[in-house]
Amino acid sequence: MKESPGVVDLLGVLAYAELSAYARMTEDATTLAPSLGDRAGLSELAVTEYAHFRLLRDRLAELGADPEKAMSPFVAALDGWHAQTRPADWLQALVKTYVGDGIAHDFYREASRNLDPSIAGLVDEVLVDEGRSEFAVERVRAGIEADPTAGARLALWARRLVGEALSQAQQVALARPELAVLVAESVGEGEADISRLFAKLTEGHGKRMAAMGI
Amino acid sequence: MKESPGVVDLLGVLAYAELSAYARMTEDATTLAPSLGDRAGLSELAVTEYAHFRLLRDRLAELGADPEKAMSPFVAALDGWHAQTRPADWLQALVKTYVGDGIAHDFYREASRNLDPSIAGLVDEVLVDEGRSEFAVERVRAGIEADPTAGARLALWARRLVGEALSQAQQVALARPELAVLVAESVGEGEADISRLFAKLTEGHGKRMAAMGI
Repeated sequence: MKESPGVVDLLGVLAYAELSAYARMTEDATTLAPSLGDRAGLSELAVTEYAHFRLLRDRLAELGADPEKAMSPFVAALDGWHAQTRPADWLQALVKTYVGDGIAHDFYREASRNLDPSIAGLVDEVLVDEGRSEFAVERVRAGIEADPTAGARLALWARRLVGEALSQAQQVALARPELAVLVAESVGEGEADISRLFAKLTEGHGKRMAAMGI
Repeated sequence: MKESPGVVDLLGVLAYAELSAYARMTEDATTLAPSLGDRAGLSELAVTEYAHFRLLRDRLAELGADPEKAMSPFVAALDGWHAQTRPADWLQALVKTYVGDGIAHDFYREASRNLDPSIAGLVDEVLVDEGRSEFAVERVRAGIEADPTAGARLALWARRLVGEALSQAQQVALARPELAVLVAESVGEGEADISRLFAKLTEGHGKRMAAMGI
């Protein structure tokens, strides 16, 4: 089966996104969780990301691509995103998991809408929310209830997460024109289509912020 | 089902050992692996440790114990062991995974020999070597072949790992007399029995060192 280089790019960036999310969530769980129960809870989500990485890597290999080569163009941008958005405390870690991954997932889902169903299905599968929302929402709401000043700080933090994500996405689009073309074809090339994509991402982001009470 | 407090201690220390091994191996994989393939390989082993943690935690809950409470007496000693044995490079990380976990696993296996079969079986299950040896041995041998001076440095490193492990084990035994009694009953209380335990641990350690060519 022959796929366009854009598809290998899309699976490559997603695979590295999952591998690095797994590592980052594990570190946040280990260093920031206020209890062993919370630590295990976030680690559970991290291990799920690793399982998604495994699916994507294996699909890349099935397509005849070298998974390592497919991921490497995206290592710098995604590592940069994590370095720029290192959470300072547990609530920031939870917001990052929910808001940061949420907007990225919405984007990947839109970008893969017009792909071969076997690829789009895989993307859907690895983007499924396996309790991440519930885990984060519950704890962030309780955190804000316990300390009402936390809400404003977390709102700033969420804005920074989105800003950094957009800046990294722009770099990736410049560096990987084939991926940019695939995304453009998926969401439509007109200005109205791009506006629709942004409206959709903004809507999802707003819903997540509201769910946390921020 | 009522179990002696020593059993809850044993499952508690093992559960936290697996949870912290998962976190440490994930960090080592992320920061020290020379390639994305190696990083995924060590991460795969880390995720297996997490699955073992899950089994132990669930068994603790089935026994009517609070998993968090069962683990907490051992957090300081195991975190101390990891802090004292932070690998400086990829080969040290591999040796730590193989030698450090190897000797700990031999010990836990001996300590659980005379327990209720359902507990001893669980301990056996979580201590199974799922490719850890093969992964480490192959890479450490290749590393020493590429740089023959590495052998002597890694031999020193392995000695330090064992020394630190013994020192942490001693602290745990002092702090948790019920666990110490369970271990003593399992291996036998006479001097000859203790010598036999040490001989067994030394033999396993020697085999692992030889396998790596150190």
